[in-house]
Amino acid sequence: MSSAEAIIINVQHTHHLFDAFFATEQTRAIFSDQGTVQCMLDFEAALAQVEAGFSIIPLSAAETIAATCQVDRFDLGALANEAAEAGNLAIPLIRALTALVAHRDQDAARYVHWGATSQDVIDTGLMLQVRGALDLVESELTTLADACAEIAREYKMIPLAGRTWLQQATPTTFGLKVAGWLNALDSHRDRFRVLRAGALAIQFGGAVGTLASLDSHGLDVATALADRLGLALPDLPWHTQRDRVAEVATTFGLLVGTLGKIARDISLMMQTEIGEAFEPSAPGRGGSSTMPQKRNPVGCAITLAVAQRVPSLVATMLVSEIQEHERGLGGWHAEWETLPEICTLSAAALHQMAIVVKGLEVDRERMRANLDSTQGQIFAEAIAMTLAPHMGRQAALDRVKRACNQAVKKKQHLRDVLTEDTAVMAYLTVDDLDRLFAPENAVGLAVQLVDRALSRHATHI
Amino acid sequence: MSSAEAIIINVQHTHHLFDAFFATEQTRAIFSDQGTVQCMLDFEAALAQVEAGFSIIPLSAAETIAATCQVDRFDLGALANEAAEAGNLAIPLIRALTALVAHRDQDAARYVHWGATSQDVIDTGLMLQVRGALDLVESELTTLADACAEIAREYKMIPLAGRTWLQQATPTTFGLKVAGWLNALDSHRDRFRVLRAGALAIQFGGAVGTLASLDSHGLDVATALADRLGLALPDLPWHTQRDRVAEVATTFGLLVGTLGKIARDISLMMQTEIGEAFEPSAPGRGGSSTMPQKRNPVGCAITLAVAQRVPSLVATMLVSEIQEHERGLGGWHAEWETLPEICTLSAAALHQMAIVVKGLEVDRERMRANLDSTQGQIFAEAIAMTLAPHMGRQAALDRVKRACNQAVKKKQHLRDVLTEDTAVMAYLTVDDLDRLFAPENAVGLAVQLVDRALSRHATHI
Amino acid sequence: MSSAEAIIINVQHTHHLFDAFFATEQTRAIFSDQGTVQCMLDFEAALAQVEAGFSIIPLSAAETIAATCQVDRFDLGALANEAAEAGNLAIPLIRALTALVAHRDQDAARYVHWGATSQDVIDTGLMLQVRGALDLVESELTTLADACAEIAREYKMIPLAGRTWLQQATPTTFGLKVAGWLNALDSHRDRFRVLRAGALAIQFGGAVGTLASLDSHGLDVATALADRLGLALPDLPWHTQRDRVAEVATTFGLLVGTLGKIARDISLMMQTEIGEAFEPSAPGRGGSSTMPQKRNPVGCAITLAVAQRVPSLVATMLVSEIQEHERGLGGWHAEWETLPEICTLSAAALHQMAIVVKGLEVDRERMRANLDSTQGQIFAEAIAMTLAPHMGRQAALDRVKRACNQAVKKKQHLRDVLTEDTAVMAYLTVDDLDRLFAPENAVGLAVQLVDRALSRHATHI
Amino acid sequence: MSSAEAIIINVQHTHHLFDAFFATEQTRAIFSDQGTVQCMLDFEAALAQVEAGFSIIPLSAAETIAATCQVDRFDLGALANEAAEAGNLAIPLIRALTALVAHRDQDAARYVHWGATSQDVIDTGLMLQVRGALDLVESELTTLADACAEIAREYKMIPLAGRTWLQQATPTTFGLKVAGWLNALDSHRDRFRVLRAGALAIQFGGAVGTLASLDSHGLDVATALADRLGLALPDLPWHTQRDRVAEVATTFGLLVGTLGKIARDISLMMQTEIGEAFEPSAPGRGGSSTMPQKRNPVGCAITLAVAQRVPSLVATMLVSEIQEHERGLGGWHAEWETLPEICTLSAAALHQMAIVVKGLEVDRERMRANLDSTQGQIFAEAIAMTLAPHMGRQAALDRVKRACNQAVKKKQHLRDVLTEDTAVMAYLTVDDLDRLFAPENAVGLAVQLVDRALSRHATHI
Repeated sequence: MSSAEAIIINVQHTHHLFDAFFATEQTRAIFSDQGTVQCMLDFEAALAQVEAGFSIIPLSAAETIAATCQVDRFDLGALANEAAEAGNLAIPLIRALTALVAHRDQDAARYVHWGATSQDVIDTGLMLQVRGALDLVESELTTLADACAEIAREYKMIPLAGRTWLQQATPTTFGLKVAGWLNALDSHRDRFRVLRAGALAIQFGGAVGTLASLDSHGLDVATALADRLGLALPDLPWHTQRDRVAEVATTFGLLVGTLGKIARDISLMMQTEIGEAFEPSAPGRGGSSTMPQKRNPVGCAITLAVAQRVPSLVATMLVSEIQEHERGLGGWHAEWETLPEICTLSAAALHQMAIVVKGLEVDRERMRANLDSTQGQIFAEAIAMTLAPHMGRQAALDRVKRACNQAVKKKQHLRDVLTEDTAVMAYLTVDDLDRLFAPENAVGLAVQLVDRALSRHATHI
Repeated sequence: MSSAEAIIINVQHTHHLFDAFFATEQTRAIFSDQGTVQCMLDFEAALAQVEAGFSIIPLSAAETIAATCQVDRFDLGALANEAAEAGNLAIPLIRALTALVAHRDQDAARYVHWGATSQDVIDTGLMLQVRGALDLVESELTTLADACAEIAREYKMIPLAGRTWLQQATPTTFGLKVAGWLNALDSHRDRFRVLRAGALAIQFGGAVGTLASLDSHGLDVATALADRLGLALPDLPWHTQRDRVAEVATTFGLLVGTLGKIARDISLMMQTEIGEAFEPSAPGRGGSSTMPQKRNPVGCAITLAVAQRVPSLVATMLVSEIQEHERGLGGWHAEWETLPEICTLSAAALHQMAIVVKGLEVDRERMRANLDSTQGQIFAEAIAMTLAPHMGRQAALDRVKRACNQAVKKKQHLRDVLTEDTAVMAYLTVDDLDRLFAPENAVGLAVQLVDRALSRHATHI
Repeated sequence: MSSAEAIIINVQHTHHLFDAFFATEQTRAIFSDQGTVQCMLDFEAALAQVEAGFSIIPLSAAETIAATCQVDRFDLGALANEAAEAGNLAIPLIRALTALVAHRDQDAARYVHWGATSQDVIDTGLMLQVRGALDLVESELTTLADACAEIAREYKMIPLAGRTWLQQATPTTFGLKVAGWLNALDSHRDRFRVLRAGALAIQFGGAVGTLASLDSHGLDVATALADRLGLALPDLPWHTQRDRVAEVATTFGLLVGTLGKIARDISLMMQTEIGEAFEPSAPGRGGSSTMPQKRNPVGCAITLAVAQRVPSLVATMLVSEIQEHERGLGGWHAEWETLPEICTLSAAALHQMAIVVKGLEVDRERMRANLDSTQGQIFAEAIAMTLAPHMGRQAALDRVKRACNQAVKKKQHLRDVLTEDTAVMAYLTVDDLDRLFAPENAVGLAVQLVDRALSRHATHI
Repeated sequence: MSSAEAIIINVQHTHHLFDAFFATEQTRAIFSDQGTVQCMLDFEAALAQVEAGFSIIPLSAAETIAATCQVDRFDLGALANEAAEAGNLAIPLIRALTALVAHRDQDAARYVHWGATSQDVIDTGLMLQVRGALDLVESELTTLADACAEIAREYKMIPLAGRTWLQQATPTTFGLKVAGWLNALDSHRDRFRVLRAGALAIQFGGAVGTLASLDSHGLDVATALADRLGLALPDLPWHTQRDRVAEVATTFGLLVGTLGKIARDISLMMQTEIGEAFEPSAPGRGGSSTMPQKRNPVGCAITLAVAQRVPSLVATMLVSEIQEHERGLGGWHAEWETLPEICTLSAAALHQMAIVVKGLEVDRERMRANLDSTQGQIFAEAIAMTLAPHMGRQAALDRVKRACNQAVKKKQHLRDVLTEDTAVMAYLTVDDLDRLFAPENAVGLAVQLVDRALSRHATHI
């Protein structure tokens, strides 16, 4: 007992040095040693209770077993060491559980883990952990999407240089940029709903998935067990059909890509020379050990790191689907740390981006100044398209391109160069130029598009 | 023109040496140079026609443009070389299309690609290709699932050694093994349906996704364009929101893992020393250059190769979601060959496994002989579970384990060892032993589980 | 202090549940929180001492700093939390170190971390950790290679069915099979030597790699620092040139593939139906929670899991080489947990395979029985090659193939079928057949090849 | 024959649409169908000639075989189709070669492929291709490194804002930045030399690697064959020891990361708002389909795409090292397209960066303007370090940080703020400030460090 207490103190006070970067408190708790073992014990407790319900094991045994299924009664260090010898965590855990139960009731100890196999408890425990992670992630995803929606709404008409290939292209609005993030996030929310509906299921099949050791009761027990644990009953045991857990991985993987995109955008806007948007500042956040003026995009850095790490971990999960016969050799083991890592890293990145976007500091003046910095060149497409019906699309493009080159060479405003080009001015009035060089007129359907994104967002309750 | 014809001859007669391994004729056609360019031209034709419908461009121009949008009019070699200079394929294609249209109607040439950007045509073309690939894959997936269903039904009661960690564990049935494959395949069929419903959408946004060059018509054109091409209208342009294409990749990735699992199982069963199931033989298939007796599992080899290649390609697609601002630098380009490769490799593996499973040769006698080869040890769990209510679970397991060790040491049948153990025989009759050592009695709910898988399969029409 | 003690107790008694699978005690210690921080402190101590040597800082300050650089004085939990805010671990560590030094000597505190940047201490600390890991791995690699050499020597003439595509092909010897493992391992030993010579270098460049804050002393300090820490002096700081650390990753990645190959071979040989070689057994090792007769290849499972996980982590390290300007955003952070994970996983797999190969149980009788199980078919190539000079290579292959098919159909020994084939017997005597059907005669240059591998192995001292 | 000719026309005139992005002419030729088959035929020719030298086969047969080993005599389309049935390319190729030889000399046909196995010819052919790729890559790598050296030399004293986390940090020089690229490239050159020395070896072992079919001649033939082909003789056949080919992959993978780093740096410097360096412009290069003013970093985009694709392909090669027994099932097949893709993609990126760096357009004025744009904040570290000996390091950093914040708030130059701070000015003179705010004085040992990199570069001949 004292050893178990030591462990718990432990978890409260210490953790891996990089946990604060790459995990949140809550996901760390779910996938901690304690969380892992407790979810496995939840399976054992539920199994005993359900089996007692069908009179497969005595009710008193079930009660004793269930009462013993508390993680703080177990020596996790010992379990860890025995697990590697045994080949999985379930074997020593069940042995330890049996011993603890026997201490209270020698007879009850006979019925521990009745009819199940190691993988049943490990996989079902994992599913309970994943459910916990999905709860957190869906909630945080809503927070982030809401924060994006707010920015999209507020800035839907605020012009910003649209940039392609890292070059200024044509104007857009900051609201539309963020609406793009929002819309992708709402798609991910849909994906997580589909995932939750389909992937979360108990594992229950016995040694080779036939439920052989429960005789005819097998499916009844399985049904009641699923019901008790709040997980779905799968058509079949899925000991070596790993698409279910791999899909958890891919769903997180897809999300993390979008988070990386948002982080990349914000960190680029936060460059010293651009300065359009900034991560929120806080004392001690993003400083340098030697440069007093620095303010580093810490949340973006963490998120970009996650967005480079998770795809590889997803690949591991996919390769690991190749599992042999009725129990895999290596593939299953490869999942054990990988899936929790995917969930934990993703949640950390999501948490960081929620902080960053909620507190995002926007500098409208710099946005405008950057738009103006090319002396009208950002309007080149619009001008060419205005000339196109008169001159033909390609000819118009060529003409305007020449004007752009000249403006750069002579350090002139594009408008001034065009004004001197009689071939162009044959089709354009001064009013046309006023209109064409106003960013507000150059953002197309930005407002309507933002509204479409907001409207979809509103349908997610 | 003659050059274009040369190219077509080309495609019919030659291809990459490994194409027959790693592509099917049909997916190769879809993702061939011709297929790629034609899908892009389909976009340009539809765009012109839709814009004519809204009187944005003249009807006659649209007709000329649409009539010119045929791949065999283009010099693909020239396009390829210019593309790398320009940075994408759309730029030289539109230039070439404009020139060809101008040849027929100088005025119509003005309206080529009106209001669109390079990425609009490239991404929409890709979506048309993906749709084609999904058609093929869903059909082949049905073929494979049906073939599995047939085997599952036929062999649902045929005992087979269940194997965990590559060791014989307890008996299962061959039908249940294959029902596991079937059930995973049916889950993939569901995933492909969800994918088709959500992912296939046009790309249409102009330079930075604002539809700025189409004035107020933008959304109407987009709606009609989506309708004409049979793709969905997305809420927003998704130039740098790549979860949509990444999800195509992950869905294929999940499938390929299951195909690899099936191939691994079959190749293991086909080992010389096991010999339970065999890829269909055909003249010239699976021979050796030097060993006359060899019959190699070629379909499994290809499938396993695919199942090791695709996960990495999926990782590339996920990393590539990190795209900058309104057009990505590198991330977008990384998709171009990767997504087609994923679709093509997956389709090839699926095709191979459909051939293999449809023609699978099963040796029931070897299945039985292998079951018998351990002299009863495979029934150890069942015996222990029968003793468990009397002796307690752990004590029963320990007792039977001792008997197993003795049987191995003395090369005796487990039944004979147990019969001599009075502690065991206190709880078992000879009839019990007859029952316990019959494989048919040791397969638990195999039949019911197979029926559950078949019943779910039947709901897929 | 009491908190620091709590942490240490911690490490002794608890660790992650899967650590015993996926880490060794020693690598866990190196890459533990304590190990990480101590290596960073070793850098700070050495830096102060070196700078005192050049009179850049007072000697007494250096002594106080160096004396304070002991990990057990630091509250790692607090460091972890502050690190995530600050963006890296060095910032709070230096702050804490400065405070501890100030406690002893207010003046000395001024000189902590003099002239260095965060990444200098983090990267150099990492290099010290990697050096420790290389020491362990090179030693264990020698152990494993020696164990392989012993088997190769002992079994160099013991026939074994050579298997290609998981089918019996022609005979080889078990010694030659293991010599193949040995030879690859010796290549990895060469790679680790090259790595150690080239990759292990200090990081020392100051904020942007110019050594600006040390005036003209920069290179002298760097040289003395490298010398003191026993690391190489690089030509330049390598803050964003990450080929150095990526090469550590790829070198481990290459090794892990070979370990996976060995594990795959052993686990296949250990299959119930093949039974040629077995992981060593030990009480509690490789049992099942429900099947008393099971003996699972636990070491192979762990190794195969590692061999599926590490390649993806290597990919992350390679992608992370793309680091921006003078300090990366995300790429650097992605390395922090990934490189330690690669080292730790690899060391764990290596440790497992060393145990497995050292204790490998070999069953020569089963090797021979499996060779005989195909009734002579495994000699088909040799027979065909003997006939080839008389009949032509292709004709001989075809003839023998026909005989093989007939032997299978009629369940005859291949020798008996051939004896009845007059076209064949025109060129073969009974003595020829005796010779051709003796495995000892069918293993070609196995002995010489084993000797070549042993001879190379002997050159590694 | 006519079909073979058709194919050749083919390769000259057409190729995959994305080849110009992702391959160079020369690597495309090496890894083309023709290149692949010719290298295999080179093996067969050399084998026959060597065997004739030992009188294993008749000299006349060897001459006929060698004379027939020309790719244009083979129908590659037919080979491709048969290969997938047979399971590898060697089987149909040897069959076709045998037929062609028989056409000339019935007797000679008996001796085709004598004593070799499919994998011998495929792997050795691959090694010949890899050697060709290494020739190209090493040459291009020298070109790129030389171009970097030239820039490093020219700009070694030209100040540039050093940037960490995408924020201006302290000054560096453009020469030092490029020297960092150079130094990494020179390390890669070393790696390629090591690779060439160790990895390029023949494969020659016969069916299971025993050389059984060549009797005692095996090693002599192997030695002479290696000599004739200019490849090393390995200690043993390496049919399923794939560290050799995996190392080719990792060496390219490491290089590609550095190329990606260079491309990221250049593309960031080329941003509209930064404008410090530019890819060379050329007609048709980097334009937009709609935006006349655009100039896109095409070479960087391709390189970044490659740097995101290759790491995943390397992971595939590493996972594929796990090959079964004497011939792998799936792992070997997974290499076939993957390794060529790695070589080809890497060569393309290298080619692009050579073009970009050789033609890099540098804008010194923008470099200086960007340095000045923060009104002195970039010198904050230097000022703090000057104050540190007087005030203590942390106090100095805090004081200067406060000044920086005030300067930003009041839009003042940092110098002006500091001048008003009497606590600061107690330790600084106006001359000190002059010195501290001059970029030239703030670049530390940039010049010496550049010289170190140039000096190492000069040692590569």
